[in-house]
Amino acid sequence: MGKTVRETFRAPADLDRVDTRARPIGPRDKAAAAEEMGDIGKRLDHLQEALYAEATGGSPRALLLVLQGMDTSGKGGVIRHVGGLVNPQGLQIATFKKPTEEELAHDFLWRVRRQVPAPGRIGIFDRSHYEDVLIARVDSLVPEDVWRARYSQITDFEAELGAQGITMVKCMLHISAKEQAERLVARLDDPAKRWKYNPGDLDARVKWPAYQEAYAEAVQRTDTDDAPWYVIPSDRKWYRNWAIAALLAETLADLDPRFPEPDFDVDAERARLAASGVS
Amino acid sequence: MGKTVRETFRAPADLDRVDTRARPIGPRDKAAAAEEMGDIGKRLDHLQEALYAEATGGSPRALLLVLQGMDTSGKGGVIRHVGGLVNPQGLQIATFKKPTEEELAHDFLWRVRRQVPAPGRIGIFDRSHYEDVLIARVDSLVPEDVWRARYSQITDFEAELGAQGITMVKCMLHISAKEQAERLVARLDDPAKRWKYNPGDLDARVKWPAYQEAYAEAVQRTDTDDAPWYVIPSDRKWYRNWAIAALLAETLADLDPRFPEPDFDVDAERARLAASGVS
Repeated sequence: MGKTVRETFRAPADLDRVDTRARPIGPRDKAAAAEEMGDIGKRLDHLQEALYAEATGGSPRALLLVLQGMDTSGKGGVIRHVGGLVNPQGLQIATFKKPTEEELAHDFLWRVRRQVPAPGRIGIFDRSHYEDVLIARVDSLVPEDVWRARYSQITDFEAELGAQGITMVKCMLHISAKEQAERLVARLDDPAKRWKYNPGDLDARVKWPAYQEAYAEAVQRTDTDDAPWYVIPSDRKWYRNWAIAALLAETLADLDPRFPEPDFDVDAERARLAASGVS
Repeated sequence: MGKTVRETFRAPADLDRVDTRARPIGPRDKAAAAEEMGDIGKRLDHLQEALYAEATGGSPRALLLVLQGMDTSGKGGVIRHVGGLVNPQGLQIATFKKPTEEELAHDFLWRVRRQVPAPGRIGIFDRSHYEDVLIARVDSLVPEDVWRARYSQITDFEAELGAQGITMVKCMLHISAKEQAERLVARLDDPAKRWKYNPGDLDARVKWPAYQEAYAEAVQRTDTDDAPWYVIPSDRKWYRNWAIAALLAETLADLDPRFPEPDFDVDAERARLAASGVS
């Protein structure tokens, strides 16, 4: 039997072992991916509706997709193309930017706890608490002992979410420095893309090796069976989107969400409806 | 020249004049509608991205779609099928249920103000402040002088939103009592739909004429050029979805959102990128 999608992308001990252009499973080209996305979309849509319905019956379960990756790696693209496959009412999207003064006045997990998806939802984090062991480390925003202590604070937090009924799917969108350069050039060249360009992106780019090291350690120290990391080869946008859609579909199918039993008498309601006398 | 979509659906003085199965403009059948939805989807997606981008350059503009209608009229279906046409990151969906104690302790517009879409977003209200002149009136939740005073409080509030840069598209999803009965039966019959059924829906159904009267007066008293009401024939789901998608596309095209000019020197950034030296 072949590997599952989750087994295939599960983070290896060494991040360097993932080729950013690899296609270890699934479609070989864009056309095949587009076709598969149609099927996955239908399955995801149905599973998401069942998850949502289940919560109306009192289930606490929810899914949380965490997206991390260097600038241009495609976090926004995944929200658009994978998030776009399901009912937007079932999504809860949170974007974590540079922390505000209020956020900085609290523990680093404070702003994250406020965005944990409600029961029945698919939460998507565009960046996350992982920034607090990535940019915080690379730019020395806090002393080393502080960010080092965060690894176990994060695994404790994520175990707590798991116990609450939240299934996490943490994805690192892995691109090469060369691919990033091409995408940044494309943003500069196209007037309809320039608004996505931020001169600050280059400040992070020149620290590429330090970021890779920070990602590698973060992934390695916080990859648990309850809250696994997946490393997604992301130099090809269509492959990245397919891989994350397939991961979500497989994870949700495994959760097997169920439509709740009615808490009313169906026959009695049929009779009331028939007697409602409006026409 | 033919009427625009907005002119066609603009609320008439008398709600009774709208046939819930009418198709006064646009596709005649489901297949034609599906084809048009593909094109409208592409246009909407592009317009929504431009609106979002424009806001990153400082524009305060946003769109707000208000959905009102009897139970089963399709508010959720519009969010799914029309909201689903655009990038979910650009949506801000708010559902207004029975007010909580905290909400009741404030002015009726308090909870609504908190959900006004941010610049660049398409907000969707699943029910709204109009409940406060609908169920509040029909069920006498407040004295008549209180709900009567709300019409002008609402038009003042909506004028204020308009002045802030928010373009409102208020839609009443108009269905017949017969169509509602069929949809309620379908919800009772299908185990995958039962979770959507609420015995309380029948309590509203038996007050159908009172609700129609409340809708008619609300629409008539709060239909302004700044915040117009559209009455959407909604007995056919595909027509309802097409009509609202077309309304949004026409309204957004008229706003003509523009990608912002860069606030950095593009050539200087190209040079910095070339010199960033990572490969």
